[in-house]
Amino acid sequence: MTLQYTSELLGTFFFAISGALAIRDHQQNDLFGAGFTGFVTAIGGGTLRDIMLGSYPLVWIEDIYFLYAVIAGVIVAYFFFEYLIQLRRTFLIFDAIGLSLFTIVGVEKALSLGVRVEIAAIMGMFTAVMGGVIRDVLTNETPVIFRKEIYATACLAGASLYLTLYYLDVDRNTNVIISSVFILVIRLLAVKYKLSLPAFRRKL
Amino acid sequence: MTLQYTSELLGTFFFAISGALAIRDHQQNDLFGAGFTGFVTAIGGGTLRDIMLGSYPLVWIEDIYFLYAVIAGVIVAYFFFEYLIQLRRTFLIFDAIGLSLFTIVGVEKALSLGVRVEIAAIMGMFTAVMGGVIRDVLTNETPVIFRKEIYATACLAGASLYLTLYYLDVDRNTNVIISSVFILVIRLLAVKYKLSLPAFRRKL
Amino acid sequence: MTLQYTSELLGTFFFAISGALAIRDHQQNDLFGAGFTGFVTAIGGGTLRDIMLGSYPLVWIEDIYFLYAVIAGVIVAYFFFEYLIQLRRTFLIFDAIGLSLFTIVGVEKALSLGVRVEIAAIMGMFTAVMGGVIRDVLTNETPVIFRKEIYATACLAGASLYLTLYYLDVDRNTNVIISSVFILVIRLLAVKYKLSLPAFRRKL
Repeated sequence: MTLQYTSELLGTFFFAISGALAIRDHQQNDLFGAGFTGFVTAIGGGTLRDIMLGSYPLVWIEDIYFLYAVIAGVIVAYFFFEYLIQLRRTFLIFDAIGLSLFTIVGVEKALSLGVRVEIAAIMGMFTAVMGGVIRDVLTNETPVIFRKEIYATACLAGASLYLTLYYLDVDRNTNVIISSVFILVIRLLAVKYKLSLPAFRRKL
Repeated sequence: MTLQYTSELLGTFFFAISGALAIRDHQQNDLFGAGFTGFVTAIGGGTLRDIMLGSYPLVWIEDIYFLYAVIAGVIVAYFFFEYLIQLRRTFLIFDAIGLSLFTIVGVEKALSLGVRVEIAAIMGMFTAVMGGVIRDVLTNETPVIFRKEIYATACLAGASLYLTLYYLDVDRNTNVIISSVFILVIRLLAVKYKLSLPAFRRKL
Repeated sequence: MTLQYTSELLGTFFFAISGALAIRDHQQNDLFGAGFTGFVTAIGGGTLRDIMLGSYPLVWIEDIYFLYAVIAGVIVAYFFFEYLIQLRRTFLIFDAIGLSLFTIVGVEKALSLGVRVEIAAIMGMFTAVMGGVIRDVLTNETPVIFRKEIYATACLAGASLYLTLYYLDVDRNTNVIISSVFILVIRLLAVKYKLSLPAFRRKL
């Protein structure tokens, strides 16, 4: 199993947990609803990336293990629900791990398809955040990318770091680990210290 | 005309009616708005399925009769508006007929493209429900799949029944009719008796 | 530079401005949020069109100047924010210019891929309006196409005019200019005089 494959499968599992836990009381709060939310969160970003890049077949359609990773995540969310939900941070940590893994997976996939670095960075960010965005749109929440703390920006920064190290010929596994941890740390610090970027829309 | 083609065209017509009737007073409540809503409801699920499976050209782009089926549905919705809207159930029945037809169409299309049975079941469900989901997202409603009564689960169950009978070598036309009616009956019973699955998110 | 290329790049720039200005106080009101909103508004319609037509690579993935046009639009929105936002009409005018340019770009692209005229008209309208629709869905606004004044209908009318003149062998540049101006004029008149189509859903 390659590092990219393992990261993608693990990211899928963590995002499925965070997606299933996102189900709310006012929604179809059953196994199907949670499974659907987990599924969309886990495979949404990669699906959008591959559709935009015209890369077929989609990862989860070709390889059934991704569906199993989603189901495993939803089952874990179901059985450890009380434990997971009481620790507010657990949700954020699973989401942050998914973010960091998927950003790098997305950048590498895009690079392997021969796009420019700017596009590769955007695809890394999309892979990481768009599953959550689609989940939020479906559940009528404000999309994660528009909430206060640094979120997608952490992915863009990590993608840029990966691409810089890539062109400096840093060993790939080292690069994957450094860049992933970088995203994870930025995201967790942003949550802990409520870090956000300066406002775009100034008071008039 | 094959059975699949007829089902797809009929499902398009019924979903266009249900989509056009879904237009609300607070929206652009005109022929364009209703037409757009009908169109999205009718072609959204199949479009998403074909894009995910990389199956081009899209059905409604290649075959103009699907556009005509949408227009026919919107016109029927316009002229029989008073009758259709007073019967609350009419809307649900048209939607349920569309669901049952589209699930089987989606499963068969996915199978014909050589995907695994699990993916074929998901594609059948997506074909049936995602047009309505896109409609609800656009009109700021809670997506149909998250409402209380069994909806997408009925499609998944019907898709599984179809796939089981398919591997038992049941005659195809018989299979299509049995599985479609099965979905229709589950859905109508779910609405009538307010059936829903047990909650995922338990009270703490 | 062809006329189509110039129109597409200019439309991208204007839509990026209108998208960045659409960011609201209750959202992630920072450079990332505004950049993302501008990006989605500018490239969403063309992306959806090309995915539906199976036309790869996507324009903005192949040609980096589209990304630069988005960035330029967001920067203009940032520095001229006070001026742009005070003039309520500015926003509407930029949006209307984007609409008129993108409709014709979309119709021509679809025609060049050999689809029927009805599909070409729909693709022109989608190219013009779907970026804004995706923006509105992400920011929890009622999608532009459902607001009161004539919007998407102006695009459909302009697309139909273009297609009529096209089959009458009118010189292409003349046709592009006439049809674009036609859309722009209808849209601006619709806003100024609050023109809307008759209601679909009649009071009972």
